[in-house]
Amino acid sequence: ELVTLMDDIHYADIAEIINELNEDEATYLIKLLESDKTSDVLTELDEDVREAILNNLSAKEIADELGELDTDDAADIIGELPNDMVQEVISEIEDREHAKDIVDLLRYDEDSAGGLMAKELVKVRENWDVLKCVKEMRAQAENVTRVHSIYVVDDDDKLKGRLSLKDLLTTSTRTHISEIYIPKVDSVNVNEKPEEVAKIMSKYDLEAIPVVDEIGRLVGRITIDDIVDVIREEADKDYQMAAGISQDVEADDSIWDLTRARLPWLFLGLIGGVGAAAIMGGFEEMISKHAVLFFFTPLIAAMAGNVGVQSSAIIVQGLANDDLKGSVSSRLVKEMLLALLNGFALATILLIFTWFWKGEFLTSLAICLSLVAVILVAGFIGTFTPLFLHKRGIDPAIATGPFITTSNDIFGILIYFSIAKMVLGI
Amino acid sequence: ELVTLMDDIHYADIAEIINELNEDEATYLIKLLESDKTSDVLTELDEDVREAILNNLSAKEIADELGELDTDDAADIIGELPNDMVQEVISEIEDREHAKDIVDLLRYDEDSAGGLMAKELVKVRENWDVLKCVKEMRAQAENVTRVHSIYVVDDDDKLKGRLSLKDLLTTSTRTHISEIYIPKVDSVNVNEKPEEVAKIMSKYDLEAIPVVDEIGRLVGRITIDDIVDVIREEADKDYQMAAGISQDVEADDSIWDLTRARLPWLFLGLIGGVGAAAIMGGFEEMISKHAVLFFFTPLIAAMAGNVGVQSSAIIVQGLANDDLKGSVSSRLVKEMLLALLNGFALATILLIFTWFWKGEFLTSLAICLSLVAVILVAGFIGTFTPLFLHKRGIDPAIATGPFITTSNDIFGILIYFSIAKMVLGI
Ligand SMILES: [Mg+2]
Ligand SMILES: [Mg+2]
Ligand SMILES: [Mg+2]
Ligand SMILES: [Mg+2]
Ligand SMILES: [Mg+2]
Ligand SMILES: [Mg+2]
Ligand SMILES: [Mg+2]
Ligand SMILES: [Mg+2]
Ligand SMILES: [Mg+2]
Ligand SMILES: [Mg+2]
Ligand SMILES: [Mg+2]
Ligand SMILES: [Mg+2]
Ligand SMILES: [Mg+2]
Repeated sequence: ELVTLMDDIHYADIAEIINELNEDEATYLIKLLESDKTSDVLTELDEDVREAILNNLSAKEIADELGELDTDDAADIIGELPNDMVQEVISEIEDREHAKDIVDLLRYDEDSAGGLMAKELVKVRENWDVLKCVKEMRAQAENVTRVHSIYVVDDDDKLKGRLSLKDLLTTSTRTHISEIYIPKVDSVNVNEKPEEVAKIMSKYDLEAIPVVDEIGRLVGRITIDDIVDVIREEADKDYQMAAGISQDVEADDSIWDLTRARLPWLFLGLIGGVGAAAIMGGFEEMISKHAVLFFFTPLIAAMAGNVGVQSSAIIVQGLANDDLKGSVSSRLVKEMLLALLNGFALATILLIFTWFWKGEFLTSLAICLSLVAVILVAGFIGTFTPLFLHKRGIDPAIATGPFITTSNDIFGILIYFSIAKMVLGI
Repeated sequence: ELVTLMDDIHYADIAEIINELNEDEATYLIKLLESDKTSDVLTELDEDVREAILNNLSAKEIADELGELDTDDAADIIGELPNDMVQEVISEIEDREHAKDIVDLLRYDEDSAGGLMAKELVKVRENWDVLKCVKEMRAQAENVTRVHSIYVVDDDDKLKGRLSLKDLLTTSTRTHISEIYIPKVDSVNVNEKPEEVAKIMSKYDLEAIPVVDEIGRLVGRITIDDIVDVIREEADKDYQMAAGISQDVEADDSIWDLTRARLPWLFLGLIGGVGAAAIMGGFEEMISKHAVLFFFTPLIAAMAGNVGVQSSAIIVQGLANDDLKGSVSSRLVKEMLLALLNGFALATILLIFTWFWKGEFLTSLAICLSLVAVILVAGFIGTFTPLFLHKRGIDPAIATGPFITTSNDIFGILIYFSIAKMVLGI
């Protein structure tokens, strides 16, 4: 009865249930499922759960599941197996063509178009006629869940274009494909970054895109469902990075995993704080006469941090979406103008407040002038750092979050006390 | 010659070019384009550019463009027109069925499934036979770029299921649809939030999903390309919110727009900083004997902020991805354990440093004990706030960023000085 119940549930939902079970229950349930559902459930499981379950299956059992999966999902699962299992599992896959395709995919970096693509696609040769084409297509389409597009290749397997199903069906059976195919087709290189593939597919509203190798041969196809996963994971990663969490943890991970992801960034903050304390220690002689200066250090640090994060986030996002135009210097000038505008607005409010509070105009002026300077420098650092990292080929997203706030805390406090010292003429 | 050049460029690329031109050039180019490309270009333009161009077109010209667009895109453009133009444009649309569909769509909240769906879809009635079905489908499919699925409805237009093209083509023409359709089909309610639709489509790897109204009638269809846009925009919005930027600005917006998006959050930070200063003013009597305490306020504020942002980001992300299991209290207990672990690790390091630096063990102990307490409270606030907002139906994403850092600055410093005062026995 459990089996018939499971029959009505989508594999993605079964995977969610299994993620919550312990290893024995999970393995029991997996073995209970109808075979063609098991494989789909396997691809949807959390990595650690899948690893535990596969540990309890024989090479033959794993191979049977992989035989039912698309090559991209099968390759991903094999990539997670311990090295000594890989060969055994591959040799147990019955469909040798399928096994060969999976082995092909294993060669590609997971962080590339090759790591995302599947071998399942429909392709025809430009020198076939329509009759032969329809016959071949029928055989190929058996392995392909959704056809999307029919790709046209030459004798060297080079991608030439695509075919419209309508043109194919409304032309005489003797016509050559070369006469009717559409020579324009979007494609990506096998080494393209997943983020770049996502940008192309979302810009052109594509549901599938062919992948070609260095010499233009059609080697696979990427479908939009896998790109949707890429977009979501990338967004999660950037969000966590900005929050000072090393990538790839979830709320339900163990305390140990979470500590490992969070403690390094906190340690960075600690160093920054110690640095700030050391700087303030250097200005200790000011404390007796101008204690109020010290009261405003959290404000200065907070403003430096906030402005830095704001400007770096806008740059990081602009870089990610390719909508950053103009030169670096014009970008910096703009941010400086913005910082001046914001800085003076905030400094004016603060000046009025501090003047009323302590009645010392000069101290208030010192605080407020420093605030403007700190905002300017924070804006500069926030703008420059991600642009610099990007130019160096480093992911600019690491520039937001603790990295920026920590360095801005230190610079901010150093600038603050230096300017205050000058203004107060000490 | 410009026209033939434009002919080879994808409409999304032309839109990118036009976004960079001034109003006159843009309007000139738009009028130059082949008509069926113009409409696609229009949907891809930045909102302000589109507004400027449409201002230079007559109601008739706009209506002609809308006539060539899918209903969802046409409705979005009409929704941006000034009120007095709307009626005129609609009355100029030649295809009255198309106009009616667009008007239907105008009723839905842009932030709902209804605001995302298009009227273009293929549907058949369950009491038709295969012959009638194929005939009707052929007519309907003319307006639909990609068919994806054939939906089956009853006489009241209620969604009953879907039809496989293969079953349709391999059954006798006299068979009734009710005998061959698949009664299981994923659908969403017209009032569903876009984020929820995105979650469903990405979980089940769908390329299109039918939309039903409150009584189950099929009213439209959402395609994955529009959901990809939803996912990207939502991610951008959350990222900006976490960085203290009100949503919907880009690096290339005007300084004024950017100031409006950023200044309010900086002002919040200013208030927090003033609050922190006021608290420190209340502990002024400690400054002569324990100046070193004041040197560590930026460290305390930074740690409170970082821990708060880390824990709230994990909760916000868990809520967004629906992978937060267990009760609120177990969640809080976990975060407290995590905070204790991190807190003690960091405090130990800090203790050694401060002790060596100033040689005052009691002061060092006071600083470090407060650090642990501050981290605990910051973790609590960071965990509790987004959970609380979520329960109240408020987007928890606003809890990350300046909101959390500001309140944690204030609470952190208050706790720090209170505990230090106790430990030092003042
Ligand atoms: Mg199976
Ligand atoms: Mg892969
Ligand atoms: Mg798009
Ligand atoms: Mg689109
Ligand atoms: Mg796939
Ligand atoms: Mg990124
Ligand atoms: Mg801070
Ligand atoms: Mg047009
Ligand atoms: Mg809409
Ligand atoms: Mg998916
Ligand atoms: Mg999938
Ligand atoms: Mg659409
Ligand atoms: Mg959100």
